[in-house]
Amino acid sequence: MNLRNANLESMALKWDGECLWVLDQTQLPDEEIWLDGSEPRTMAGLIHRLSVRGAPLIGVAAALSYAWALGSNAGDAALEADWRFLREARPTAVNLAWAMDRMKQVQEYRGREAARDEALAIFHEDVALCEAMSAHGLTLFDGSEAVLTHCNSGGLATVGVGTALGLIRRAWEAGKVSHVFVDETRPLLQGGRLTAWELGRLGIPHTLITDSMAAILMREGRIQRVLLGADRIAMNGDFANKVGTYGVAVQAHFHGVPFHTVAPWSTVDTHCPSGKDIPIEHRDAKEVRGFGSLRWAPVQSEAFNPSFDVTPVSLLTSIVLDRGVFTREQLEAGALQGCCVA
Amino acid sequence: MNLRNANLESMALKWDGECLWVLDQTQLPDEEIWLDGSEPRTMAGLIHRLSVRGAPLIGVAAALSYAWALGSNAGDAALEADWRFLREARPTAVNLAWAMDRMKQVQEYRGREAARDEALAIFHEDVALCEAMSAHGLTLFDGSEAVLTHCNSGGLATVGVGTALGLIRRAWEAGKVSHVFVDETRPLLQGGRLTAWELGRLGIPHTLITDSMAAILMREGRIQRVLLGADRIAMNGDFANKVGTYGVAVQAHFHGVPFHTVAPWSTVDTHCPSGKDIPIEHRDAKEVRGFGSLRWAPVQSEAFNPSFDVTPVSLLTSIVLDRGVFTREQLEAGALQGCCVA
Repeated sequence: MNLRNANLESMALKWDGECLWVLDQTQLPDEEIWLDGSEPRTMAGLIHRLSVRGAPLIGVAAALSYAWALGSNAGDAALEADWRFLREARPTAVNLAWAMDRMKQVQEYRGREAARDEALAIFHEDVALCEAMSAHGLTLFDGSEAVLTHCNSGGLATVGVGTALGLIRRAWEAGKVSHVFVDETRPLLQGGRLTAWELGRLGIPHTLITDSMAAILMREGRIQRVLLGADRIAMNGDFANKVGTYGVAVQAHFHGVPFHTVAPWSTVDTHCPSGKDIPIEHRDAKEVRGFGSLRWAPVQSEAFNPSFDVTPVSLLTSIVLDRGVFTREQLEAGALQGCCVA
Repeated sequence: MNLRNANLESMALKWDGECLWVLDQTQLPDEEIWLDGSEPRTMAGLIHRLSVRGAPLIGVAAALSYAWALGSNAGDAALEADWRFLREARPTAVNLAWAMDRMKQVQEYRGREAARDEALAIFHEDVALCEAMSAHGLTLFDGSEAVLTHCNSGGLATVGVGTALGLIRRAWEAGKVSHVFVDETRPLLQGGRLTAWELGRLGIPHTLITDSMAAILMREGRIQRVLLGADRIAMNGDFANKVGTYGVAVQAHFHGVPFHTVAPWSTVDTHCPSGKDIPIEHRDAKEVRGFGSLRWAPVQSEAFNPSFDVTPVSLLTSIVLDRGVFTREQLEAGALQGCCVA
């Protein structure tokens, strides 16, 4: 299996043996535009401006872009700069650093060609990880449930079926999910733009809501479970995810609705003891004053715009990883540390 | 005091003795466009499409528009139709029905001219009610606090300083409020468009947030109090307000942040025993799929779009009315019933 004669295709990424193509997610749901993201600085820019987003997809895309550079005639210094550009394109996404560190290690110990093929392995592992998370997560369901999700954690966020949305898809196929409520996920509206598009394309019944409406649906007993992704998981089970996740966790706790995050093991940051240690990226205030080129709030108004928030383990029912389901009790007893030692 | 030689002016409504002008709130914050809302069917349309919004302002504007019609040479049948159009322009706004019923009663018992002057009285009473609410509400504050508000309940929602935002303004002037966090209030963004504009115009320091960010700020101890309006208050203290209010109430309860609604007595619906009896208007799904002419979600996606939600009295710290502050305990003991009998 080597990268040069591989042909890779996922919902948002394609490798044709020569070039790496990515779906410009900022143009969904109305336009499906594929961009050439082969060149590392281009890819770093695409990641930064969210054309490529979703923690696992970012890791795979960056690894493949670096693999493309490894196949060029770039010198060591240029490659080192490319590597750093990619690794630093998005500070909160731990998968990105993880994938890039892995590429570098293989390059140093086994050479450029081996590192190129490592990117291929990372791609296939991501597909398999999604299936493993779904298989573990399917055990959570009692009957057919209506679920809530936030942001996008599906085939647009990974190169497989997805994390939380991948589980929802597999659960829907198995008759265990009947309906999906989709938080629009302000300010960048990944739920309204991406998750609604993805569910529509898959034919899964769904209802779009503003982030402020989830509480009412929970109160009315119309949501039986919350499933959403994670951008970084600390060793004590606290986790960072798209802004608004913490609010959903509080609502689920208050209304007695089970609340789960679904993520690959690479999201667990072994250097991060608790949520307090997760750095939070703050983005431009203009994202809160409007959307895209439309501004509806006064240009003078200050805005608060953290990209992520941290949900404490105390509000979780469980974390679904590709290594299995970890309940709050297990997490609080240090289950993730145990897993690392093993 | 009579309407023909009166000259009325508030932040969003003007009467020049001949015509009734209203600020088109759908065009804020960038454009200040005043529309002639004299004619009742025009006014009903402006209320329906939210150019005129805010429960107390709707009541005053409808009364003045009906007063304008009473001053025309319209026959009884035409007037009756105008009256009904105005009264039914917005089903959840109890102030509207209250103001229109009051106009009708005066017309029937004391004639057209008296009813015209009644509209003038309704205007001046609204100004005085705002000051009374503020005076009672000021007793809530301990020191200088950062507060959170939702939607718009200020000088754009009344003809005085406002209900909740009027209290915030008076408290800021008294050194009791240091900063205002403003929920943008999806889907129609009254917080981002109107409250941020109004606070900017008044020079009150504020920060705009998406509705999903309030929880984080509460967790960080950066919000000391929540103050927001009400569209209808049931006799047991449950109340309806702009969608998202219930979610804020749950967040405030979880984080131990005092939560108050501020409203005039006319918001209390004596025919409504509890929140279960408040009808909830559902609006077009397209408001959730985008904003204004911009759509970002797939046109095929279903959406849930209640205009209001109901917050149970159990999540309230107190209701601030022009008649005084009613604590949760007093409300649960039937204080509003007692007030009606008196």
